[in-house]
This record gives sequence, structure tokens and C-alpha cells, in this order.
Amino acid sequence: MDERMEKQLAFALEIDKVKNVFRQTHLSNNGRNENDAEHSWHMAVMAYLLREYANEEVDIAKVMLMCLIHDIVEIDAGDTYAYDAEGLQTQKAREDAAKERIFSILPQEQKTEFVALFDEFEAYETAESKFAHAMDNIQPLLLNNSNDGGDWRAHNVTASQVYNRQGKTKLGSEKLYEVTDQILQDNIKKGNLK
Amino acid sequence: MDERMEKQLAFALEIDKVKNVFRQTHLSNNGRNENDAEHSWHMAVMAYLLREYANEEVDIAKVMLMCLIHDIVEIDAGDTYAYDAEGLQTQKAREDAAKERIFSILPQEQKTEFVALFDEFEAYETAESKFAHAMDNIQPLLLNNSNDGGDWRAHNVTASQVYNRQGKTKLGSEKLYEVTDQILQDNIKKGNLK
Repeated sequence: MDERMEKQLAFALEIDKVKNVFRQTHLSNNGRNENDAEHSWHMAVMAYLLREYANEEVDIAKVMLMCLIHDIVEIDAGDTYAYDAEGLQTQKAREDAAKERIFSILPQEQKTEFVALFDEFEAYETAESKFAHAMDNIQPLLLNNSNDGGDWRAHNVTASQVYNRQGKTKLGSEKLYEVTDQILQDNIKKGNLK
Repeated sequence: MDERMEKQLAFALEIDKVKNVFRQTHLSNNGRNENDAEHSWHMAVMAYLLREYANEEVDIAKVMLMCLIHDIVEIDAGDTYAYDAEGLQTQKAREDAAKERIFSILPQEQKTEFVALFDEFEAYETAESKFAHAMDNIQPLLLNNSNDGGDWRAHNVTASQVYNRQGKTKLGSEKLYEVTDQILQDNIKKGNLK
């Protein structure tokens, strides 16, 4: 095996660890906590399925790949809950260090490519990034809604906090924001969200 | 919400269940059993990472999508272990029924598209399907190799059974078959595989 393939397979094995990074979101039917690999898989399928609702035309392969790799840094950095103010302050530093260590396992030009893709996702500027972020919002919303808002209640999250985050779905998809708003209003009415 | 989006979101929620379909493969570091969502995520990332080794040029977005959806039928049909002769006899009938039920949740034209993609994967004829199958082989091989062949030993699988399956990796990638062969020989030498 040459050095290039050795690096690629070492990276492939390393990212197996993302399956052990658990999120605050629970699976449907009040299941266990979801992990990052499952979340990323779900986001990528949903991106393809819902691509017609993107505000701008997107390179769907790029969106899917972004969805698939956006949480790999959490192998080292851990999951930061969307409504954890303290954790959010140190998130960037933790993720930057993780990004450097983990993507450095790859051959140089693939490292450059994956880092650029991750940075593009984080920067929230391109059409692909905005649509991928919309998936990052609507995927857990769908699960949490199916569980009567259990994750919000467990963390005493308020409607304004949720709107603050989910509101950005608009940047990627006006259409999906409409349904997001509908789901949130419905949960406020039911008392799942204060 | 219109009927089309309702169907798409119902499908998105339905496929959450694939996270509860567990495989015989164990995660690295002698971890727990892997589930289908994690396996599919891993395959899709590896497909992108290793696309340069495909025998023929492939539409990588199509390969990734194939990887992501190929196990959705197992929500109803369950996972059939690659070396379970009895299970393999009924696999097609179980998966056909599942395919019909699950993809019918989608709007008609998306059902048609996803079913065609699944059928293409199963038919093992196109370049994309052959490369996706190579991922379906090499992804668990990588994990099992990292665990000293524990999954083979647990099921008393023989080298000839493994070569019978893994040999088909050649159809998608001669290069990845070379490394597969190397890994298998290594495990035979170590006594992990008889």
C-alpha cells in the first residue's frame, strides 16, 4: 500500500469515532440520543430530498458532502449544544484545533479540500453552506417535534432562543422556514416550548 | 404545508428508524455494533475520499446518494448478515416489500427516483453501483481489521467465504481490491480468519 492510500485509510478509520459523539437530540419515538454520524447521514439525505426548496440553486453534491463532514471536528471538540452559551464561547478554538489534527491525517491536497469545505460551512456565506445549515436546523427540529419537544423541555429552552437559531433557516430556504415557523408555533401552543 | 412537502417530511422522519437497525460489524476499538445510518454515512464519505481508485469514472454524487439510501429497506427487512446463507435466500423478497412500503411515502416522482437508485445499486451493473458496493465491502473490512477480525471469529466465517464477497470489490476498484487482499492475507496469517 502506498503512503497516499495509507493516509486515506487511516483517516477513514479515524472518523469512525464520530459515531461515539452523542448529541442532545433524541431519535424519534423517544429513542436514545442521536450521534453525529447518524445526524450527518440524515442531513445529507434530507438535503437531496428537499433541494428544490433551496433559495438559490445549489451544487447538491457539495451540500451533501458538507453535511457529511461538518461534525468530524467534534471527535476532539465534542458536541456543543445549540443553546449552551458557555460552550459556544470556546467552540471555535476547540474546533480549530480538532480540524488541524484530524484533517492532517489526509494527504495534503485532500486536507486542504476538506478544511476548505468545513470552513465554507462555518462561514455561512455560500448558497451551499446556507442550505446545509438549514438541514442542520430542520433535521433535529423534525425529531424533537416528533417527540413533543422533549429536548427543549429537558434544557428549559425558550421560544426566543429557538427562533434565534431556527430563524437562520430562512437564509437557506424561505420555504423550509415557513414550515419551521409552523412547527414552532404548534409547539408553543401545545406548551412544549415556552 | 402542501401535500408534497408533507410527504417529503414524513419520509424524512420515517427513515430515522434506520438508526435502530444494527449490523454484525462492530465499531473500531472493539466498540458496540454499528447501525445502518452510521454505516451508510461512513460509506458515503469513503466513496468521496477514495473516488480516484474507481475502475471507471463515476458520478460521485450518485455513488454517495446510493451509499446513503441503500440500507433504508432494512427498516422493515432487517439486516441480513453477509454470511447468513438462510437469510440471504429470503432477503430479496423482504427487501422488495420494504422498498414498496417505504419509498411510497414519497411524492411519486421521488419514489420512482429512489427506487431506481436502489435497484441500480442492487443490480451491480453500472460503474456507480460497483464502486458503491466496493465501499459496502471495504468499510466493514476496515473496522473488522482494526478489531483483529472479531466479527469473523464471532461467526466462524472462513477465508473462502470472505474472499467470495470481498472479491467483488475488484469490479469497482482493482486498487482497493489489492489492499483488501493484503488485509485478508494479514488476518489469515494472524489466525483471525481460517
